[in-house]
Amino acid sequence: MKFQDYKSVNELQELAKTAPNLTKQGYLSDERIRRMAISFGKWRLLYGTERVDEKICKALSNLAMEAGVHEKMNKLQNMDVMNYVNNCKSEERRVGHTAIRNQDKNAKWSAETREAREDYQTELRKLKVFNSKANKFKSMIIVGIGGSYLGTEAVYHALKAFQTDDKKLYFASNVDPDKVNAILAEVDLKTTLVAIISKSGGTLEIKSEEELLRKRYAQAKLNVKDHFILVTGKGSPMDEPSNFLEIFYMWDYIGGRFSVSSMVGAVPLAFVFGMEIWEEFLKGLHEMDQHALNEKDPMKNLPLFGALLGIWNRNFLELPTLAIIPYSQAMNFWSAHLQQLFMESNGKSVAQEDGSFIKHETSPVIWGTVGTEGQHAYYQCIHQGTGEVPIEFIGFASSQREGDAIIEGTTNQEKLLANLFAQAIALAKGDHNLNSNKYFSGNRPSHILLANVLDPYTLGSLLAYHEHYVAYEGFIWGINSFDQEGVQLGKVLANSVIDLFKCQRVKGCTSLDKESALGNAFIAELKLVQEVDFPKNEKKLA
Amino acid sequence: MKFQDYKSVNELQELAKTAPNLTKQGYLSDERIRRMAISFGKWRLLYGTERVDEKICKALSNLAMEAGVHEKMNKLQNMDVMNYVNNCKSEERRVGHTAIRNQDKNAKWSAETREAREDYQTELRKLKVFNSKANKFKSMIIVGIGGSYLGTEAVYHALKAFQTDDKKLYFASNVDPDKVNAILAEVDLKTTLVAIISKSGGTLEIKSEEELLRKRYAQAKLNVKDHFILVTGKGSPMDEPSNFLEIFYMWDYIGGRFSVSSMVGAVPLAFVFGMEIWEEFLKGLHEMDQHALNEKDPMKNLPLFGALLGIWNRNFLELPTLAIIPYSQAMNFWSAHLQQLFMESNGKSVAQEDGSFIKHETSPVIWGTVGTEGQHAYYQCIHQGTGEVPIEFIGFASSQREGDAIIEGTTNQEKLLANLFAQAIALAKGDHNLNSNKYFSGNRPSHILLANVLDPYTLGSLLAYHEHYVAYEGFIWGINSFDQEGVQLGKVLANSVIDLFKCQRVKGCTSLDKESALGNAFIAELKLVQEVDFPKNEKKLA
Repeated sequence: MKFQDYKSVNELQELAKTAPNLTKQGYLSDERIRRMAISFGKWRLLYGTERVDEKICKALSNLAMEAGVHEKMNKLQNMDVMNYVNNCKSEERRVGHTAIRNQDKNAKWSAETREAREDYQTELRKLKVFNSKANKFKSMIIVGIGGSYLGTEAVYHALKAFQTDDKKLYFASNVDPDKVNAILAEVDLKTTLVAIISKSGGTLEIKSEEELLRKRYAQAKLNVKDHFILVTGKGSPMDEPSNFLEIFYMWDYIGGRFSVSSMVGAVPLAFVFGMEIWEEFLKGLHEMDQHALNEKDPMKNLPLFGALLGIWNRNFLELPTLAIIPYSQAMNFWSAHLQQLFMESNGKSVAQEDGSFIKHETSPVIWGTVGTEGQHAYYQCIHQGTGEVPIEFIGFASSQREGDAIIEGTTNQEKLLANLFAQAIALAKGDHNLNSNKYFSGNRPSHILLANVLDPYTLGSLLAYHEHYVAYEGFIWGINSFDQEGVQLGKVLANSVIDLFKCQRVKGCTSLDKESALGNAFIAELKLVQEVDFPKNEKKLA
Repeated sequence: MKFQDYKSVNELQELAKTAPNLTKQGYLSDERIRRMAISFGKWRLLYGTERVDEKICKALSNLAMEAGVHEKMNKLQNMDVMNYVNNCKSEERRVGHTAIRNQDKNAKWSAETREAREDYQTELRKLKVFNSKANKFKSMIIVGIGGSYLGTEAVYHALKAFQTDDKKLYFASNVDPDKVNAILAEVDLKTTLVAIISKSGGTLEIKSEEELLRKRYAQAKLNVKDHFILVTGKGSPMDEPSNFLEIFYMWDYIGGRFSVSSMVGAVPLAFVFGMEIWEEFLKGLHEMDQHALNEKDPMKNLPLFGALLGIWNRNFLELPTLAIIPYSQAMNFWSAHLQQLFMESNGKSVAQEDGSFIKHETSPVIWGTVGTEGQHAYYQCIHQGTGEVPIEFIGFASSQREGDAIIEGTTNQEKLLANLFAQAIALAKGDHNLNSNKYFSGNRPSHILLANVLDPYTLGSLLAYHEHYVAYEGFIWGINSFDQEGVQLGKVLANSVIDLFKCQRVKGCTSLDKESALGNAFIAELKLVQEVDFPKNEKKLA
């Protein structure tokens, strides 16, 4: 059945016409804030500042049930084939990111699930041995793009306060040569490992970066192989043990944006944080996985309820973006990871059921930076702009590091939290000032995810919250959240423009097929901007 | 006159109904790409992949003329009072960011403009002397929020390749104590300067950070004053020479988000890059200012035409966001600055003319990260999602740093550019594949800003492009782009929640006024999440 055919979709469309007005005198009460909250593990979700009431929540719960989300989550975690689109040639793969981190080896799972778990344990044991010998290395350059680094970078920054040494990670995540050359200007190659991370083992950007780095190690007269490790799909074109100090494996059931808990994240993150912190992080993920699987009441299932609030704001209040704003400097890279997780998973237009084009909106644009920084940047627009932006705030009762102080009667952590709460209140209540320039319409929805402190367990749990939020959202929208055909066209066209650049260096090459004609027009423009800096006349003089 | 009353707005609404379809066979030609391009200085704007034609461009030009943009730009650069809203109590200030950087001391300007320029020159001379004595310092911690650091941070990262020493900037831009404590874990206080940057000299966050840092210097038994400098409004509460090694001034005609070229940016950026690079940067700004002022043809005026394309996409094609995506790793912080510049300036709902509520959309949500990184993150949604996202791409013919290499026939810079061009083509042309899962609707608009290399002059020029883009947009929408009343409500409410936190430490304090009741409900939630980590029973045992 399609999204628009669910009875509750119809009901929710009606309810949206009379959605609660948070600015109504007395509506946003102390009692409402306390009542509208659910918890799991370390996390508490406060949604009293969303434009929902009991009736709407009930209808959203019905929507989840109509969409059969529990059965689908069960299939996902049991590693049934969930990455498919009927009537279309598609990837037809299992999805295994929850299976590998399953801590319960006695659970009744499918053979695939048990095998995935065991294979991952084997790799983790290899990693433990490797790390015990890798202590001479101080830095690691990660060569990877998209899912091969975004989550790792987010976790690295989020947990830096827990590092006991000063090992560093660098991310060569862009084909832009300035990125890798800036890294090379900073590191000491002698004590630096390079981790090539590529599931397919065939990406041109990765191969270019690798070749460039291998050249540098050779120029520095170092034994190149002793500095290169690899994370790849078993049997990929890169899977050549003679080229690497060690190779760690992943399998095709791990999608890039869901790969943080696989060897993609484990190799760099256990390098800087050690295995103990890594295991804590995995525990946080696993326990949220179990909660997502076993909590059948949509109003108590944290990621499911999060997804339902997202769908309410996107499909019924018709808000085109979602800002995710952690009030925690350490989470500075979180929304970059979530942009991929949300938008690559659910920025889709095709029904999984039959390959037809869907008739409703899917992923909003995900954006945001950390608070309080955003307050002095884009909050003007969020408060008084003509559009509305729903927000997921994330906050912590305690800071990660020592060294806070009481200044003018409060700690800075308290000031930080006061700002977070004040924003949720201000957005909801507004201020119907008589001076129109100081008028705040209010009635702008948000919710708050709250925990005590951002530690490895709590972060793992949050990551799984967002992963399952996305999965549930996809289940309800009826789309395939696990492929990414939308990145292919750009890749194909990029290769054809690369061929045009290549052609310029080859005598007699005149390959100007119609398909690439536009590429030639753009390349001609490059010459024009170069000539501004290097006028033809000057060149002649030089 | 209001936006909706302009004749050309009516015409553009009609034209939008039959806006060009870029996927039409043969429409997106080589010839079109070449023809639809304008240049100024080092920059070239390619807009063949926008959904415009000659007729639409003509109507957009008419709109600019109807809105009287040239007269307004003239007033702005001549420092007339432009920060006002009629019929509302508002800031009533002049706007002087172009005046201070005016390189032409003989131009016929108002007395205010000449004075602003001279005052700035005086400060720059002070800075030159200061820097010549500050060479023993290796790092600078900038204590500032919003406009006091965002632009500086963006320029710092953009120009790092031009540094000749290894001086570093750190940004204590968040009241989150984890941010400043992470910085303190890295720097050597002995060789570190602290620059407090606050125009008003009265922001609580800044005072808290300053006090915390002064305590640390005192604990380290250093002469505190010798490490603290200040940038502030003359006569602000912080303007106490006895507290600082040096004080640099700014005036109330410099708004935070337009302050990069004032002492706000000059002090930290000349510290790391030297005065010569700073002067080059200012030259780039000034020449774009002059172009914005003197080029009366909207189709040839780079920032004005950029603004018109933005208005076309926002108000007539009705697209709610704008992604700004530089294909340059060094510009990683650019969109964070632009979020403030665009959204704080033009996220408004009130007509400057009479203080009435406007009836059209204003600033879109600004977002984006650097390419190619975004390609493997959110481009899926941009290509195949249900919403459309117009894009401003930014690219450079040459890389900043040495060390690129030819790999498989092309340099990595060429691969980077190939990706940029390919994305613009892919978004516009699409691919009407028979497999619906591989179907790209196309017809998604973008344009490209192209220059030879990201150097100080070119970056200054780009910054002024974006500043004037925003000003022109505001002129046409008829709003005041220079105040930020929308951040006030959150500030006021934050202070009332801070008072509640404070109250907890004061015996007998029971101040629970109605206004802050919601704050108490949220503070109660903090206790709940803390108890998960520290159950009451455990506490008793400890």
